[in-house]
Amino acid sequence: MTEYTLHCFAESGNAYKVALMLELTGQDWAPVFVDFFNGQTRGQDWRDAVNEQGEVPVLEHAGEKLTQSALILDYLAERTGQFGPRDDIEKREIWRWMLFDNHKFTSYYAALRFIFCLKQMGESDVTRFLRERARAAYQIVDAHLAKTPFMVGGRLTIADLSLAGYVYMPEDTGLALSEFRHVEAWKARIQEVPGWKHPYDLMPGTAA
Amino acid sequence: MTEYTLHCFAESGNAYKVALMLELTGQDWAPVFVDFFNGQTRGQDWRDAVNEQGEVPVLEHAGEKLTQSALILDYLAERTGQFGPRDDIEKREIWRWMLFDNHKFTSYYAALRFIFCLKQMGESDVTRFLRERARAAYQIVDAHLAKTPFMVGGRLTIADLSLAGYVYMPEDTGLALSEFRHVEAWKARIQEVPGWKHPYDLMPGTAA
Repeated sequence: MTEYTLHCFAESGNAYKVALMLELTGQDWAPVFVDFFNGQTRGQDWRDAVNEQGEVPVLEHAGEKLTQSALILDYLAERTGQFGPRDDIEKREIWRWMLFDNHKFTSYYAALRFIFCLKQMGESDVTRFLRERARAAYQIVDAHLAKTPFMVGGRLTIADLSLAGYVYMPEDTGLALSEFRHVEAWKARIQEVPGWKHPYDLMPGTAA
Repeated sequence: MTEYTLHCFAESGNAYKVALMLELTGQDWAPVFVDFFNGQTRGQDWRDAVNEQGEVPVLEHAGEKLTQSALILDYLAERTGQFGPRDDIEKREIWRWMLFDNHKFTSYYAALRFIFCLKQMGESDVTRFLRERARAAYQIVDAHLAKTPFMVGGRLTIADLSLAGYVYMPEDTGLALSEFRHVEAWKARIQEVPGWKHPYDLMPGTAA
């Protein structure tokens, strides 16, 4: 029995945020595969037993079930003493970027990738709408990263791990990533951190 | 000079979350109107001077600018001693619902309202997509409120104030609110709290 159990699947960037944090901080953890693509998270049984919000990641630790990637990252930073804030001002900076990530940066990009790349529903007004929203969020993060190597405090923190949830996913969403050269440089910096792994190498995936 | 200054506009439910918190906790505060509909938050000047994330609300307090409604609610709960968590477990419960709100509940509903009601772009695949996503989020909150009068701890907390950001907006988004009777009952309970005000009575709006 490992100390941490993560309910996840490889295609989930939200689960990757937590998986990478567990890996980089050297925790004793194991994944439990969630069959999202066959509707497991939409089932009432799963919602009653695991997460009423119908989402991964869910982290089991010390008899508790923790949900929401940003909250789990904050919990792990506090417990491990790694990648967290140094003071209250940094703490608020980290949280405001994790919230921006949940509301816009990850949110629109992940929705676009899901319907355009994974469900392969083709180009439509919906994909164009999501791509424009994702682009606007990327522009804001890119402008921030023009001024600093990492999002907060000049070093890797959980704010970066949150925003980086989907940026290594290999699928082509039609968003021209070369427009965002500061984001691209930041992605490379994170990949250089010892122990970094790609989401598809860190969590069990759904057979294609 | 008031103690708190809130950059906001009446049509913003995200700003309303903070305005209502300031009002219900009896703070000395004043709004500063942000001309969102004429592009003020998209201007580089505003982003440099007020918020690089290009969003309201922004709360000025004690020489600091705070952004992201959930973070501001947490800050105010801590400072005022009102509507916050009683312990660490409640704190995580509150945060996980505020995150769900930012990611899905407020997010999809507000985007739908913006393009369908405020910009009046008509029914389209995009509005149908957003309405389906909003409905799924409403169902999850409705199922939770079937079991409890308020989101966390059986009493009004900042989790409720976050989720309630857009629920009093008068515009018809085409989402059948009568489907969500537990949400409707919860809305009525919040309206009964002494000092409750409608967003359009609490913040300066844009001339129609």
